[in-house]
Amino acid sequence: MNEIHVAIWGATGMVGQRFVQLLAHHPWFRVVALGASDVSAGRPYAEACHWLLPTPMPAAVRDLIVQPIDKVPDCPLVFSALPSDVAGPVEETLAQAGTAICTNASAHRLDDDVPLLIPEVNAEHTALIDVQRQRRGGKGFIVASANCSATQLAVALKPLHETYEVRKVSVVTMQAVSGAGYPGVSALDILDNVLPLIPGEEDKLETEPQKLLGQLRNGEIENALFVISAQCNRVPVRDGHTECVSVQLERHATLDDVIAAWQGFATSPELAELPSSPPRPILVSDRDNRPQPLRDRDMERGMCVTVGRVRPCPILDFKFVVLGHNTLRGAAGGSIHNAELLVAQGWVR
Amino acid sequence: MNEIHVAIWGATGMVGQRFVQLLAHHPWFRVVALGASDVSAGRPYAEACHWLLPTPMPAAVRDLIVQPIDKVPDCPLVFSALPSDVAGPVEETLAQAGTAICTNASAHRLDDDVPLLIPEVNAEHTALIDVQRQRRGGKGFIVASANCSATQLAVALKPLHETYEVRKVSVVTMQAVSGAGYPGVSALDILDNVLPLIPGEEDKLETEPQKLLGQLRNGEIENALFVISAQCNRVPVRDGHTECVSVQLERHATLDDVIAAWQGFATSPELAELPSSPPRPILVSDRDNRPQPLRDRDMERGMCVTVGRVRPCPILDFKFVVLGHNTLRGAAGGSIHNAELLVAQGWVR
Amino acid sequence: MNEIHVAIWGATGMVGQRFVQLLAHHPWFRVVALGASDVSAGRPYAEACHWLLPTPMPAAVRDLIVQPIDKVPDCPLVFSALPSDVAGPVEETLAQAGTAICTNASAHRLDDDVPLLIPEVNAEHTALIDVQRQRRGGKGFIVASANCSATQLAVALKPLHETYEVRKVSVVTMQAVSGAGYPGVSALDILDNVLPLIPGEEDKLETEPQKLLGQLRNGEIENALFVISAQCNRVPVRDGHTECVSVQLERHATLDDVIAAWQGFATSPELAELPSSPPRPILVSDRDNRPQPLRDRDMERGMCVTVGRVRPCPILDFKFVVLGHNTLRGAAGGSIHNAELLVAQGWVR
Amino acid sequence: MNEIHVAIWGATGMVGQRFVQLLAHHPWFRVVALGASDVSAGRPYAEACHWLLPTPMPAAVRDLIVQPIDKVPDCPLVFSALPSDVAGPVEETLAQAGTAICTNASAHRLDDDVPLLIPEVNAEHTALIDVQRQRRGGKGFIVASANCSATQLAVALKPLHETYEVRKVSVVTMQAVSGAGYPGVSALDILDNVLPLIPGEEDKLETEPQKLLGQLRNGEIENALFVISAQCNRVPVRDGHTECVSVQLERHATLDDVIAAWQGFATSPELAELPSSPPRPILVSDRDNRPQPLRDRDMERGMCVTVGRVRPCPILDFKFVVLGHNTLRGAAGGSIHNAELLVAQGWVR
Repeated sequence: MNEIHVAIWGATGMVGQRFVQLLAHHPWFRVVALGASDVSAGRPYAEACHWLLPTPMPAAVRDLIVQPIDKVPDCPLVFSALPSDVAGPVEETLAQAGTAICTNASAHRLDDDVPLLIPEVNAEHTALIDVQRQRRGGKGFIVASANCSATQLAVALKPLHETYEVRKVSVVTMQAVSGAGYPGVSALDILDNVLPLIPGEEDKLETEPQKLLGQLRNGEIENALFVISAQCNRVPVRDGHTECVSVQLERHATLDDVIAAWQGFATSPELAELPSSPPRPILVSDRDNRPQPLRDRDMERGMCVTVGRVRPCPILDFKFVVLGHNTLRGAAGGSIHNAELLVAQGWVR
Repeated sequence: MNEIHVAIWGATGMVGQRFVQLLAHHPWFRVVALGASDVSAGRPYAEACHWLLPTPMPAAVRDLIVQPIDKVPDCPLVFSALPSDVAGPVEETLAQAGTAICTNASAHRLDDDVPLLIPEVNAEHTALIDVQRQRRGGKGFIVASANCSATQLAVALKPLHETYEVRKVSVVTMQAVSGAGYPGVSALDILDNVLPLIPGEEDKLETEPQKLLGQLRNGEIENALFVISAQCNRVPVRDGHTECVSVQLERHATLDDVIAAWQGFATSPELAELPSSPPRPILVSDRDNRPQPLRDRDMERGMCVTVGRVRPCPILDFKFVVLGHNTLRGAAGGSIHNAELLVAQGWVR
Repeated sequence: MNEIHVAIWGATGMVGQRFVQLLAHHPWFRVVALGASDVSAGRPYAEACHWLLPTPMPAAVRDLIVQPIDKVPDCPLVFSALPSDVAGPVEETLAQAGTAICTNASAHRLDDDVPLLIPEVNAEHTALIDVQRQRRGGKGFIVASANCSATQLAVALKPLHETYEVRKVSVVTMQAVSGAGYPGVSALDILDNVLPLIPGEEDKLETEPQKLLGQLRNGEIENALFVISAQCNRVPVRDGHTECVSVQLERHATLDDVIAAWQGFATSPELAELPSSPPRPILVSDRDNRPQPLRDRDMERGMCVTVGRVRPCPILDFKFVVLGHNTLRGAAGGSIHNAELLVAQGWVR
Repeated sequence: MNEIHVAIWGATGMVGQRFVQLLAHHPWFRVVALGASDVSAGRPYAEACHWLLPTPMPAAVRDLIVQPIDKVPDCPLVFSALPSDVAGPVEETLAQAGTAICTNASAHRLDDDVPLLIPEVNAEHTALIDVQRQRRGGKGFIVASANCSATQLAVALKPLHETYEVRKVSVVTMQAVSGAGYPGVSALDILDNVLPLIPGEEDKLETEPQKLLGQLRNGEIENALFVISAQCNRVPVRDGHTECVSVQLERHATLDDVIAAWQGFATSPELAELPSSPPRPILVSDRDNRPQPLRDRDMERGMCVTVGRVRPCPILDFKFVVLGHNTLRGAAGGSIHNAELLVAQGWVR
């Protein structure tokens, strides 16, 4: 395969930096352009970006001159980590200009003709791209990653829904501060504290999984019909969202059935070829005090979700804890994974 | 009223120290004896106790010689903060010897003839003391405080249950490290982490509120009939447990009804006389990102619970967040409050 | 004494909120005006201010309409918590207009004719006010509080300097996040981390103590002659700066002499009358693992400094640790204390 | 080279786990035995060990039966992470029995005939092994790693001492909780706090660097003659010790000289062959707010030290900050590095 040139739009923020880090040694993609807001544009990336990750800034991007985001970069694929208030129109413009966009922004996630994509969950939803092209014109297109909390929940629910059909989901999250970007959460708000509100998050978590687990029929996604009730909290954790979940299933399942469903959830041959695919998309923890963000977030290079503490729920059917890395699986890593699928399926070349 | 002499058993631990701190200037009670395990017994308290609270150790107790816990102290009332593995028999022995015990230990909480007491919730349950005396003989008796997580949940549910009858409760907790005592949680387990298991906690939280909100009939508590599903987590917070709750009510209530029930939940005249009674047992927060442990745990000197974020739940009826101070309202403060009620009702004099 | 009307300029920030909190029940001062930047001006304080302190916003200020800071409030005394970039000219204008300013900003701290005041350290420096009025005209004047790190160091050095003359001071600080204001330090920068730079802080800490401990002669401060070498760090602590100090003294002193100097450092009769004066300005900890920010910052309502771990230094003479509350003693509390001294001395009435 | 069989004594503790983790894929060494205290002995490692690291326990050790530490394992090399109170005699017994010990314990560090070894600092000190064998008999021997804080200080001082001769060192540390082992520091002692005392640490930091930078002459180490004054603190950081250092040098050096000395400090060809040698033993940070534990501890796989903020000191000559990973470079990684040197030099085969 030839190396595919890519750009990262919104490259100086927290998720943008993750894109830069993860793409530094990617076997398929080469970063040729970085875009950011006007304060950064025109300066070398090394100078424009307040680099926050614990690995050094990759040498290859240090001298790239940051471009304004209203420019159309000369490459077939753009990763977007743009802030939600500007992402919408910028991404549309890029798509019109013929670019494929793998976006982490929320602007187009629930658009009828935009795939909300997690390769292990709904790889077939990419067929919506044709609908999108027809409807919007243009040769480019937008494919969205889901919200970080919704992503790990959808992955955990996928094998249950497939076999037993999910009916109700009650979920309380304990989310890491990296999810709020940088500078994001003030130390004064979170040291020795819990914040019981993450604006907008509960809406996303209550609506995105149904599209993710929906069926594509006649060029439309029929959302899955389960109901989600979400409560989202911010806790003093750097990375990794922890979710306490209760589910009700349509068809009878035992505790062993549930565990077996997760353990049997294998990566398809199509996905196994993708560089970012985790060997095991779902790890089932056999220790009763796991998963924990500190100790499980980096499993499978941050691309799996870990479930544990599965037990009966006296109100719904089962309770469990699911954990995922919010800026890897739940953001930049997820979008790169999506892009890899698009390449494998021939949408990007 | 004459000053009542009291002892604190288990005085060197985390909750024991809270008893010492809170009783230092109590208008009714004077600490005359401190008891602890064999390693501490025989030494002055100032030397035996690794004092952890941010206020200085009260001068009055510094020179008290710590007594062995198998001794019966010469006073009518003992506060017990004994570890659960020794509390059971020690408290029985003390009761047999004629002492009133206000215990924070879990050993006797679910005993049929032991009041599990929160003055605002079930002051009338003290009538069980007569049953207990009859059944066990002895002039002393045991009155128990509930688990910290259960206490704040029961207080929040009380006005709802009274008017609308609670049917189902789903609760996920984010609990402070002080709940595990000292040394308790290792820094290596909790810095930048969440622990999704607190051994034994979910059982307590799923069973104690039904007794707390039960009805005393013919010398027996008929437990409230609602079902609780609990998931308990430890988070990097010093003090204050945060609980995300969903409830289903038997009778129809609007959001305004729920808020009105909490706001109308006043302290009874009987309780208003007690030194530890909070003027308002339940605070309803009007800010959408509250309650928070850091900013609400010390309201009403740590003796109220704060509720907030009340909103409809798409699965049960309503969702909300409730916060309480786990070592004040939820432990030492609660037991002292109980003792005050016992004095006011004439059980202790 | 009649109640003195006061204003707080910069009232919505972290230090401004501390002023509001501390003045809510002040026996001498009544807050009649609050000033802040243009985004806040014109709105009720309760709405303009993102209140961060763990006690409720005082009822008396909730409805005060925030004023623009270029207005001159109608009261004899203004507390300034203005950001340093605007404090300079605003404070000069107020002073020209006849107002007494007790400022926590750094703008005028090192001006020749502005007292840099800590009542326990240099109460006599207020005589500079006459020089200031002569030089600048106007009936008002500016009195400055020192930097928080410099304040607690100067208090600890004061009794040593008085008797043994300080020659060299090597100091490494571990400073709380509240010192950076709100939002200030990002959680992503400080959770599980230490920041080895606080811009501008080392300069202040290396230069202010010499003025604080200087002698007023002929209308001029002759700075103390000792040299300070400072290294300033930010640590994941909410409140309370910890400083590891080594000192060299001009005259011989034993370890016991040093301890005796601190223990004998009593509040003068003049200061004892001031509401904010701590009964003991310096606490000497007798436990070898103290002072600690968590457990000592609130001693004497946050107005004392605590020293401990005094021991010989193999390079200079003595090493010790000093701790103070950075937003109480080191900021708002210190400025209020200054204002009280000004009232007691007749400069404000 | 043939694979060398090794044992880890003290394998269940924090440092022991690091040994296990680091040796899992070591190109020269294969772990064949694990030893621990009586409570663990006889059980499979997977069961006896409360595994704390964020990578999974290596499969190869899960089923090894933990041995009692008074046994002599059948292998030429033992890594010791034994607690200091038992390490002394156990290590002597092993050495007498013919085993080479690379220990992280403090028991024998200052013994005249035991090399205190850091390959980049004093590789030639291994010649002491002959002295040790002569004096103690036996074919085995003990080689010690230095205290974690002393290690990173010694590495930073090495190039300065070589060229300019260090005279005085003032150092204040901010140390991570992992240095205290597990469970080690209680969350209640460190959340929102700094502990200004680490028992025994200042002694080690004030005495070990002189031996590390000493000269081997006639079978004896002549300690370097500089004086160290240390103040050691515990901060809420998981891994990585930060040290604020001031140094006085015997010979004149400019700031550029100091930086050049660090930057020119290359790994010798002998060391370059060792698997654990960092390509660059000292990184000089060019950003003014670095090094930081979070962002620099994992550089060079945790085996380098990072220096930054070099600037003149008004009391001694220069100030700087040095950071190292305390359980990698400063403990298990350092001992493995030492063992590799012993293999390369032919002491172990």
